[in-house]
Amino acid sequence: MSFVAPESLSEQIAKYLAQRIIQGELSPGERIQEARVVNELNVSRGSVREALLILEKGYLINILPRRGAVVSDLSERDICNLYDLYISLLTMLTGSVAERWQGQQLQPLLEQWHSMKALAVGPDKEAFVSAGFTLMHEAFAVCDNRYLADMLENLQPAVHRTYVLAVRRKPETIKEATVFFADIVNAVVKRDKDRIPGIVRAYGRYQCRLVLSALAQETAECA
Amino acid sequence: MSFVAPESLSEQIAKYLAQRIIQGELSPGERIQEARVVNELNVSRGSVREALLILEKGYLINILPRRGAVVSDLSERDICNLYDLYISLLTMLTGSVAERWQGQQLQPLLEQWHSMKALAVGPDKEAFVSAGFTLMHEAFAVCDNRYLADMLENLQPAVHRTYVLAVRRKPETIKEATVFFADIVNAVVKRDKDRIPGIVRAYGRYQCRLVLSALAQETAECA
Repeated sequence: MSFVAPESLSEQIAKYLAQRIIQGELSPGERIQEARVVNELNVSRGSVREALLILEKGYLINILPRRGAVVSDLSERDICNLYDLYISLLTMLTGSVAERWQGQQLQPLLEQWHSMKALAVGPDKEAFVSAGFTLMHEAFAVCDNRYLADMLENLQPAVHRTYVLAVRRKPETIKEATVFFADIVNAVVKRDKDRIPGIVRAYGRYQCRLVLSALAQETAECA
Repeated sequence: MSFVAPESLSEQIAKYLAQRIIQGELSPGERIQEARVVNELNVSRGSVREALLILEKGYLINILPRRGAVVSDLSERDICNLYDLYISLLTMLTGSVAERWQGQQLQPLLEQWHSMKALAVGPDKEAFVSAGFTLMHEAFAVCDNRYLADMLENLQPAVHRTYVLAVRRKPETIKEATVFFADIVNAVVKRDKDRIPGIVRAYGRYQCRLVLSALAQETAECA
């Protein structure tokens, strides 16, 4: 049994707002007014301000000098940059887990992967996406590089936002994701380090193209 | 001519404290008392608190539940983890600059490198170290990936701290650093992307070994 520190109020507010941005209820460029959140959630100004700093760290908003908090844009260049870096960091994480795992350390990861396979064929595709991030978090403990874990944690909300966009447009992409996870879990179990960069790069680039085409469709519909 | 936003009070406080940690005046495990900094610098509690968050982001301190701010440890594992990630991110940055630079974009980088060569033979070795980080910042503009720039920015203070430790123990290492920078600048100018990972990895690993041996000497002397 392990004890987990409870979420602070500002973390709860951040999670609520992050969810609304990730789900696309708040659009790129939309302002998030501090006073409105204070009234809506009946919380203090200080905790809303802290929540906004958490969202900024996760690249979901920009805090601008005189305009305040604004939902961040999803430009093509930003998405390519985000995926370039994410591919490189995920390759490092997966390679390190393949090299370092010992004894029963992979057990929680394999259990998480097992429940992901059930979610993949269920109706709630976004639950599958979230479960993938949980798998990544399980990997942090094995890799034991807090700098790498922090960087991936910071990128996660922005990546999550792009995944949801892609999956909403093309739910059948979960099939590709399942193949990717099966490959990568297999390579980790077998300590097949040489195959990992290729697997992560191929899937990352596929996912990036998918997000770009979902974004292009969305933009065309809004125009 | 370009205008630069002035540093906020909390950024100035953070810079002052960072300098003391990087120079080794504040030791691993040492507490930084908020009230003491408030009195010493005659500033508000709020700005000291913000400064501490900046230092935490740069991995120079940990903020612990009941103990407050404590200068972070430099364990062998932490240093290896830090360099693993730094090597991977610097490879990405340099590769991207080699691929993307156009027209006169490299000019500021080449000028910075020129002044580094002068510093390398001068008496102030730490000025050379700082100038190397300025060169990295010049590269951010060409690479144009804000996620990557943020990650490198976050790691910089911790890396700076380890460099200063190594250079203090072995000032002649600046010679190796000069060879590395000459190689890497050359590869970027010639867009020789294939050579970059090898150059960065070899120098990063050399630097990591140097830091580990400096740390071991320091620990032996304190024991």
